[in-house]
Amino acid sequence: MAQPINCKAAVCWEAGADLVIEDIAVGPPKAGEVRVKVLATGVCHTDEYTRSGMDSEGTFPCILGHEGGCVVESVGEGVTTVAVGDHVIPLYIPECRECKFCKSGKTNLCSIIRVTQGKGVMPDGTSRFTCKGQTVYHFMGTSTFSEYTVVAEISIAKVAKEAPLEKVCLLGCGITTGYGAVMNTMKCEAGCNAAVFGLGAVGLASIMGLSKAGAKRIIAVDINPKKFELAKQFGATECVNPKDHDKPIQEVLIEMTFEDGAGGLDYTFECIGRPETMRAALECCHKGWGKSCIMGVAGAGVEVSTRPFQLVTGRTWTGSAFGGTRGRTQLPQMVDEYLQGQFKVDEFVTGEFPLEKINDAFHSMHDGAIRPVVIMRK
Amino acid sequence: MAQPINCKAAVCWEAGADLVIEDIAVGPPKAGEVRVKVLATGVCHTDEYTRSGMDSEGTFPCILGHEGGCVVESVGEGVTTVAVGDHVIPLYIPECRECKFCKSGKTNLCSIIRVTQGKGVMPDGTSRFTCKGQTVYHFMGTSTFSEYTVVAEISIAKVAKEAPLEKVCLLGCGITTGYGAVMNTMKCEAGCNAAVFGLGAVGLASIMGLSKAGAKRIIAVDINPKKFELAKQFGATECVNPKDHDKPIQEVLIEMTFEDGAGGLDYTFECIGRPETMRAALECCHKGWGKSCIMGVAGAGVEVSTRPFQLVTGRTWTGSAFGGTRGRTQLPQMVDEYLQGQFKVDEFVTGEFPLEKINDAFHSMHDGAIRPVVIMRK
Repeated sequence: MAQPINCKAAVCWEAGADLVIEDIAVGPPKAGEVRVKVLATGVCHTDEYTRSGMDSEGTFPCILGHEGGCVVESVGEGVTTVAVGDHVIPLYIPECRECKFCKSGKTNLCSIIRVTQGKGVMPDGTSRFTCKGQTVYHFMGTSTFSEYTVVAEISIAKVAKEAPLEKVCLLGCGITTGYGAVMNTMKCEAGCNAAVFGLGAVGLASIMGLSKAGAKRIIAVDINPKKFELAKQFGATECVNPKDHDKPIQEVLIEMTFEDGAGGLDYTFECIGRPETMRAALECCHKGWGKSCIMGVAGAGVEVSTRPFQLVTGRTWTGSAFGGTRGRTQLPQMVDEYLQGQFKVDEFVTGEFPLEKINDAFHSMHDGAIRPVVIMRK
Repeated sequence: MAQPINCKAAVCWEAGADLVIEDIAVGPPKAGEVRVKVLATGVCHTDEYTRSGMDSEGTFPCILGHEGGCVVESVGEGVTTVAVGDHVIPLYIPECRECKFCKSGKTNLCSIIRVTQGKGVMPDGTSRFTCKGQTVYHFMGTSTFSEYTVVAEISIAKVAKEAPLEKVCLLGCGITTGYGAVMNTMKCEAGCNAAVFGLGAVGLASIMGLSKAGAKRIIAVDINPKKFELAKQFGATECVNPKDHDKPIQEVLIEMTFEDGAGGLDYTFECIGRPETMRAALECCHKGWGKSCIMGVAGAGVEVSTRPFQLVTGRTWTGSAFGGTRGRTQLPQMVDEYLQGQFKVDEFVTGEFPLEKINDAFHSMHDGAIRPVVIMRK
C-alpha cells in the first residue's frame, strides 16, 4: 500500500507572506485520487492573487500552484483513466463528464467538486498535505508548488510523453485560457477585427488564437510598450498604449477601426482584471454585434459597470474560465498540436527557477515577465 | 404637386408638459419620403420617457408617437417601394439595406439616418411640421401622434390590407420588441427555462415568444400581481412577485429552478429599464450558459453593474432593440402570421382613446394598462 512521501514544497503560511520551502508529507491517494510527481510548474498571477491576500477565499497555510507538468506516481482505488508513469497536467477545472454542467455540452465549468476544492481540501473533505504536524491546504485542486501533489482523477489530463513537461505545464492555465477563449468561448471567425487588453500570457495566447483563427486586425493594448515586440511575434497587427492618448482607449480603438460610417471591434478580450479595462473592452465593441470576453480575475468586491445602452445597441458581454476548455478531452489534443508545431508554448517561458528561488519567480512577474517556470529537482 | 395638409396633432411643447391638440400643417413628402394618414397609434413608455423630460436628447416642441397604423397618402420623388393607398407601419429603426449595419447580416440597427432622426428632423435636416408659425420637430422618425405624418421610405413596412391597423400598429414597437428578442436576438430553443422581468407589452410579448418557441418554464416577474392573470394567458407557467420574498429576486429564481445540483435560468429578459432588475436578470442566469437580454430603456446617465465573476463563470449579458427585427423585411411576415392566428395582438390593447383624450391614454399606462391605442377620426 502506498505510503506518505516526504518531499519539498513551497508553503504559503499566511496571506501576504513570501513562500517558504518546507519539508512536507504528501499522503497516499485515496479512492478516485492520483498522486503525481511535479517536474515543473508555471507561476501565474492567480497564485500571486491568493498569496497576496486579495482573494478573500484563500485558505492558509496552503500550497499554491496550478500550472503543473507531472508524472503519475501512484493511483488510488478505482482509478482507471491514468496509470503510474503517465505524463499529466493537473486541471483546476475538472471534467467529470457526469454532472449537469459536463452533460450540458454548453460549458466546461464542471462543478462536481467545486465546494471542497474551494475550501482547499480533497473531495472527501481532508487534505493530503502535512508540515510540522500541521495540516496544509490544497489550492485550486492542484497545488503544484510541491515536488509531489495529489489531485482527483477527474482533474487530470493525460498528455503525450514526447512533450516537454517544463513547457506544456503552461497549458494548465494561461495559454489555454487565452487561446481557448478565442476558439471555444467566442469562436472568432476569419476576417474579424479584435482587440486584446493586457499582454501577459493570457493576452498573448489570445493573440495567438486570433492569428490562427485568421483575424484581419489584432490590436494589442497595454500600458507597457516593452511588450509590443513580443505581441507582434504572436500575431498582433497593431499595438496601442493608452498612455499615448488623451481620450479614453475605447474612443481611440473606435476611431482606429472606423470604416463605412462606424467603428468598433468584432471581438475584444480583457486579460487584465481591472474594471476600467473591462468596461473599455466592452465599449469599444462594434455597435450591433461586437462581443467582449472577460478573462482577468478582479479583486474581491470589484464591480464592472456600463450604460445599458451599450448592451441594448447590440454589444454582448461575457467571460471565459480556462478558455472554455474541457481539460481531459481537449488538453491532450492541444499538446499534440503543440508537438506538431501548430502553436507556440516555449515562447511564453521567460525564465526558469529552481523551487528554492520560487519567490524570485513571483518577483519576475511583477517586472513584466510573461511566465516564469519553476523546475523541480530531478 | 402635393401640398401641405392641415390636420390635428398632439404637440408636446416642452419637456414635462401634457400634450396639446393643435392644428398643424404637414408638408409634402420630399424625395425618398412618404406622407401617411395615421389611423391609429399605440402609446408606449418611450413616448412618456421623452414627454416627461427624462430623455436628455428630446427636442421640443415635437410630435411624439411611434406605433402607427397608417395608409400612404402621397409619396415623394423616387419612392418605389410603397404607393398611395398602401397600408403601412412606420419604423423607428429603418432598414436601408445598403449601410454597413444592414449589409452585415448581424444586426437590425440600420444607422443611415440615425443622426438626423436623433435631432428630430428628416434626412435632409428639416422638419415637415409647423404649428402657429413655429417648426415642430419629429420624434423617432415616426411622429404618429398626428393625423398625418411624414416618414422616410426606408422607415416604412408595407403590410397586408386585411389587417386591422388599430391592432397591428402595436407591431411598430412593443410586441415586436419582446417577441423579436426571443426569436431573433436570443434564438431561444424548445425546452429552455426563462424568466421575464416586467409585464408590460414588451414582457408579455416576450412570454408569447417563449411560449411559441417551446420553453419549458416561463417565469413572469412583476411587483404588480394584477398582471399575473394576463401573463398566464400569454403563456407564463409561473408568476413571482419580488415583494413576496425577503431575499433578492435572483436568489429566489435560482432556488425555484434548482435541479441536479445547480439553479438558474437559460434565458432572462429585462423589460423594465431599471438597473436593479437588469442586474438581477443577469445574476439569476444559469452558471455556464445563462444569457440575459436587456430591452428596457433606462434613464439618462443610469449604469448597470455586476461582479465580473458573473460573466467569467459563463453568463452573457446583451440587449435588443426592436427585437432585432428588420422592419421592412420582417413586419409584413409578422402581420401575415397574426392574420393566420399564429400570435396575439388584439389582447395587448387595453383601451381605445380618441386623439383628444391622448393624455388620458398616457395616464392609463401609469395605472398599469398594457397598451392604450389612440384612434384617429376617420
